[in-house]
Amino acid sequence: KTTVVHIHVINPSFYLFNSFAHRGELRKAKRIVVKLGSAVVTRGDECGLALGRLASVVEQVAMLQNQGREMMIVTSGAVAFGKQRLRHEILLSQSVRQALHSGQNQLKDMSVPVLEARACAAAGQSGLMALYEAMFAQYSTCTAQVLVTNLDFHDDQKRRNLNSTLQELLRMNIVPIINTNDAVVPPPEPNSDLQGVNVISIKDNDSLAARLAVEMKADLLIALSDVEGLYDSPPGTDDAKLIDIFYPGDQLSITYGTKSRVGIGGMEAKVKAALWALQGGTSVVIANGTHPKVTGHVITDIVEGKKVGTFFSEVKPAGPTVEQQTEMARNSGRTLAALHPDQRGEIICHLADLLVEKKEEILAANKMDMDLAVNAALLNRLSLSPAKLNSLAIGLRQIAVASQDSVGRVLRRTRVAHNLELEQITVPIGVLLVIFEARPDCLPQVSALAIASGNALLAKGGKEAANTNRILHELTQEALDIHWVKEAVQLVSTREEVEDLCRLDEMIDLIIPRGSSQLVRNIQSAAKGIPVLGHSEGICHVYIDSEAAIDKVIKIVRDSKCDYPAACNAMETLLVHRDILRTPLFDQIIDMLRTEQVKIHAGPRFASYLTFSPSEVKSLRTEYGDLECCVEVVDTMQEAIDHIHRYGSSHTDVIVTENEDTAERFLQQLDSACVFWNASSRFADGYRFGLGAEVGISTARIHARGPVGLEGLLTTKWVLRGDGHTAADFSEQGTMKYLHENLPVTQPQTSN
Amino acid sequence: KTTVVHIHVINPSFYLFNSFAHRGELRKAKRIVVKLGSAVVTRGDECGLALGRLASVVEQVAMLQNQGREMMIVTSGAVAFGKQRLRHEILLSQSVRQALHSGQNQLKDMSVPVLEARACAAAGQSGLMALYEAMFAQYSTCTAQVLVTNLDFHDDQKRRNLNSTLQELLRMNIVPIINTNDAVVPPPEPNSDLQGVNVISIKDNDSLAARLAVEMKADLLIALSDVEGLYDSPPGTDDAKLIDIFYPGDQLSITYGTKSRVGIGGMEAKVKAALWALQGGTSVVIANGTHPKVTGHVITDIVEGKKVGTFFSEVKPAGPTVEQQTEMARNSGRTLAALHPDQRGEIICHLADLLVEKKEEILAANKMDMDLAVNAALLNRLSLSPAKLNSLAIGLRQIAVASQDSVGRVLRRTRVAHNLELEQITVPIGVLLVIFEARPDCLPQVSALAIASGNALLAKGGKEAANTNRILHELTQEALDIHWVKEAVQLVSTREEVEDLCRLDEMIDLIIPRGSSQLVRNIQSAAKGIPVLGHSEGICHVYIDSEAAIDKVIKIVRDSKCDYPAACNAMETLLVHRDILRTPLFDQIIDMLRTEQVKIHAGPRFASYLTFSPSEVKSLRTEYGDLECCVEVVDTMQEAIDHIHRYGSSHTDVIVTENEDTAERFLQQLDSACVFWNASSRFADGYRFGLGAEVGISTARIHARGPVGLEGLLTTKWVLRGDGHTAADFSEQGTMKYLHENLPVTQPQTSN
Repeated sequence: KTTVVHIHVINPSFYLFNSFAHRGELRKAKRIVVKLGSAVVTRGDECGLALGRLASVVEQVAMLQNQGREMMIVTSGAVAFGKQRLRHEILLSQSVRQALHSGQNQLKDMSVPVLEARACAAAGQSGLMALYEAMFAQYSTCTAQVLVTNLDFHDDQKRRNLNSTLQELLRMNIVPIINTNDAVVPPPEPNSDLQGVNVISIKDNDSLAARLAVEMKADLLIALSDVEGLYDSPPGTDDAKLIDIFYPGDQLSITYGTKSRVGIGGMEAKVKAALWALQGGTSVVIANGTHPKVTGHVITDIVEGKKVGTFFSEVKPAGPTVEQQTEMARNSGRTLAALHPDQRGEIICHLADLLVEKKEEILAANKMDMDLAVNAALLNRLSLSPAKLNSLAIGLRQIAVASQDSVGRVLRRTRVAHNLELEQITVPIGVLLVIFEARPDCLPQVSALAIASGNALLAKGGKEAANTNRILHELTQEALDIHWVKEAVQLVSTREEVEDLCRLDEMIDLIIPRGSSQLVRNIQSAAKGIPVLGHSEGICHVYIDSEAAIDKVIKIVRDSKCDYPAACNAMETLLVHRDILRTPLFDQIIDMLRTEQVKIHAGPRFASYLTFSPSEVKSLRTEYGDLECCVEVVDTMQEAIDHIHRYGSSHTDVIVTENEDTAERFLQQLDSACVFWNASSRFADGYRFGLGAEVGISTARIHARGPVGLEGLLTTKWVLRGDGHTAADFSEQGTMKYLHENLPVTQPQTSN
Repeated sequence: KTTVVHIHVINPSFYLFNSFAHRGELRKAKRIVVKLGSAVVTRGDECGLALGRLASVVEQVAMLQNQGREMMIVTSGAVAFGKQRLRHEILLSQSVRQALHSGQNQLKDMSVPVLEARACAAAGQSGLMALYEAMFAQYSTCTAQVLVTNLDFHDDQKRRNLNSTLQELLRMNIVPIINTNDAVVPPPEPNSDLQGVNVISIKDNDSLAARLAVEMKADLLIALSDVEGLYDSPPGTDDAKLIDIFYPGDQLSITYGTKSRVGIGGMEAKVKAALWALQGGTSVVIANGTHPKVTGHVITDIVEGKKVGTFFSEVKPAGPTVEQQTEMARNSGRTLAALHPDQRGEIICHLADLLVEKKEEILAANKMDMDLAVNAALLNRLSLSPAKLNSLAIGLRQIAVASQDSVGRVLRRTRVAHNLELEQITVPIGVLLVIFEARPDCLPQVSALAIASGNALLAKGGKEAANTNRILHELTQEALDIHWVKEAVQLVSTREEVEDLCRLDEMIDLIIPRGSSQLVRNIQSAAKGIPVLGHSEGICHVYIDSEAAIDKVIKIVRDSKCDYPAACNAMETLLVHRDILRTPLFDQIIDMLRTEQVKIHAGPRFASYLTFSPSEVKSLRTEYGDLECCVEVVDTMQEAIDHIHRYGSSHTDVIVTENEDTAERFLQQLDSACVFWNASSRFADGYRFGLGAEVGISTARIHARGPVGLEGLLTTKWVLRGDGHTAADFSEQGTMKYLHENLPVTQPQTSN
């Protein structure tokens, strides 16, 4: 076997002799030890390798190696490989007749002598290495076999020899594959985990991997086995949670001792090895390498800083974790929800006052963000001014007024039976996660909406506005503190990945993304099990009927497309009735669009009518979000409806006509969140609808649809007050009858 | 290399010489050819193998082989393997100094002579086979190499030889691995797809696999490549849909010709090969073998009958596909929603009449299902009777009455500006998918609810009630037909997998599972992107306060636990204030529970108070759903609330106390869908709440919460009527001002 030697320069500045402080830094890891527990490389019965997992480990390690990192593998699997191979040999030595009689299905039951683990390891080692070599060869990566025993680390000379050998291999871009030299270790003890053919196993190489990682000054040790990581209480019990980041100082909070057998299981040895490596300056991640859904990228995910398994870190960050923040927000939010509406109003007004009083501090922080901004568009979105802060404060005071009766409003009262009264009342949804991009005025607005509706809030802003968001959040907490609910609004660190937040489905009740439709789409696909309130697309249509009035057409089309082309409620497709195609009206529309510099794309039917047509659209389902639109021709109003149902996004669609009957049929039949007659699509907006503060626009079909006001942040609960009533009282043998009498709702049921 | 011979008996009845009619039958496939396109086994640049994918193919094939099937593989990859290997050799022949200078990163750019595909194939063949052999050895499975050319099939003698060789291999439980013998085929044509080092590839072995499958009378040919399957129009264009089942008769509907380059791509050859195999009696599935999320189980999924890729079938089922049904339902549902409420009521009443008129037919069909029922519990759930049909009809007529003003009800009217009026009105959600288990009375009930709310419905019943459901659905369509909306309610074939239905997220707007909480949980986890209305858990608490009245305690606890223990609103945990622990009241509660034969589990605190305690609970978060409950002690009402927040499911929780102040604090602070004072938890029910028909109980926090009436099947839309209004009219330079005046809602806003 020949070897290609690739030499590359090692940059000493890559080396970090102290472990990394947080997961994001793992991207910088240069030298990485990947430890594969036997559960990862072998199949269920530890007889034969789990090839798929082994191959994807090789794939990932080779990829990282090709990025210029120095990868080492500490592997298991020789015993399993050898066991499979020896079983083969032993079966062959049995008589063919017996095999013929017993049939294939009985093969597993055939008596196979107990195989000694050390013999299996010796028999399997060569095959295992050949497999690694063949696999790595597919990535032009060379491997080297290194067999060691724990004792090799105790002898200084041996350790130095091992060290220099490995350094040399790494220098030559070779991936060392390290395993314990089982053939020369003492025989397994009786009653250990090496019992008989069905339970044979070899001890995990945890301490070997840890020693090796420290010896080689590796930046990162990834220990893969079949457990997810470290839990704060025995897994399977109520409230057991996977620990995301484990600090050695926290070790005492883990239940070892009598419960360790159930809870931590084989984890104690893993944790000890991890702590040992950590003290030696190597960061450690313990993760599950057997989960079918993530096996193919578990190693690269860890190196990319994603929340996988448990990360061991020496440096405890100052603030709480996002899980702790969520818990604090929920608890404080419950108090917030129980406040009197006037008290919530006071908090919001106090925040409005602070925005004006503290404008110097806010603008100073804002300037720090602006100084770092990289382009004019970002500057524009970031920038605050005294005038902006003033109008922000005015908006907040409006929210305070508008929200007076939002929480605890009685929607329905029913006398179910004598002395049994039912009420349906509005209550907050719970914990909201609002994700917004650069624009920092979003934070006080969203906070005010959350406070007004009694919800707890996790706010996640863009890192471009980090300084501004920090001071705005401090002021929000200062305002909340007047009623001792400071923690109800939390600012999530910019370091947290949105993806990771979207996984907190047990803790967060609703996600509201505020920003580009790309942001909304990303979050909708990342949020598993948490509802998302937002619109991912706005493909709005304006349909010009044959009986449309010319002045209205020009006004509405211009406003719908040109008022603010990037908005989700801007027109994307103009549908024109065939009868007006060769009329002066049509020429006027086209002239107006040209004057406004709107680029016109032709739908297929429109194109077929023209000798020289503009560029034909690729898709009738395009959101241009710019001074561009599609023009298409339809024969009838019904055809316009069919077109919109087929290609639209059910956001906002408009008919322009003077025929009331046509209009009403359009309004009735069209299945969109907003249907307009003779009005610009740009009216689809919470403020313009008179809903007061706008939470967002929803294209979902349940909960809230179209522009959403404060009520989108509310849900209901049912309160039943009885006098010892039971369902049995109402059975055929019972004494009571249902009345189900609607009672007047005493509170004024104002709309909003 | 030695070989283990496993002999097993081939059951001739396994063989089906005609192709399978539907995917479910693929489970019966005995002899299977798996064809691996080069995109599956090689990496992006076709240099080196995609080991992870190859390993998982081996894993799946070995598993299917070990189930007693006869597996054959038609593989690609020899060229890629050989190319990787030869590049290695060529690089080695360059001077070491050059390699040292250019460094590792420039390696890819180094000039490598163009490698001829046939030479690569020859060089790679042996290594590829060695890899297959090593991999299959891990599963105790033996492989054999068979190299053929297409010409071998044209010569009868050669074909017979090949056939008998393969039969012999299969008989010995060996997996033949078949590849084209590239070394002896004619050299590649210029301008073909074998150009230079970067685009080198080998033609897919589609026709070889098809010929082989037919020659060997295989039941199934699985052709894996990097396309999802066959589309009905060029992929990427508007409305292009993956074809689930392709019938040869439909072939003309596919756009070949000029568009084939864009649309079908290399699919034409694949389709031709597939049709050839199909005519020879082999079923074919074309699927994507490179999708990271499914690679590990794509082959086994296909054999299990899951909807993966495109299935080629000769037998076209009589009915429409579920996608077509959904489309029909949506279109017909739009007409249904546009009917007058009286007309929808007429349909429901007509259905009620039919249930009574046609009771003979219904009961006859029901008897057919009952005759097949396997146990008494199922019989009980299945059984209909004239009395049941009568009360079903009465319920339907109530729905007809209750629903009069459900659709098109005006919720809010606002004068936005002069001549610009906004209305928010109720509209149906769209297409509902209701999944229910054995109980066939569910079908007319759910249909009536859908009709009343103007929604289209896909009903998926259990196969145990197939005959009853079929006639009930016929009657429903007969009733719908009086207003020409017959297709608005569709019965989904029992053959459709619930998982597959849950994937139709572009077509279905809401899923309502009616049945066990296990069913609900399964559907919640399967539904990607479609909201699910239902409750997965009901962990309800009754808290006995220190000031509780003894008679009410006994009545409420008995009713909450024993009235119907399997219901989701039954009590699972009894929380007892510490002060009543050693009182006669407590003894009376325990006596009552014992009399009712309720098995008591002790919470940890309760257990610590007792000398001889009942078994301690494993988890305080258990839904017993039976005559069992947990008893736990709390110090205060606040502690009871904390306990419920921590371990409850926010379904229904009860306080029993005479202290109104305590009760109101409990009702206010507890964050559950239903909070009751001195009433049994069993009242949490749509009928008992007076909501009329019950859609279900929701533990979601958005849209609908707690017992859900018809309004849970409605959403809203915004209707704006203007006179040419534009947003620009309201700008600072504009002439108009927003009024946002609330107008009276003219229709009676009854609560239904």
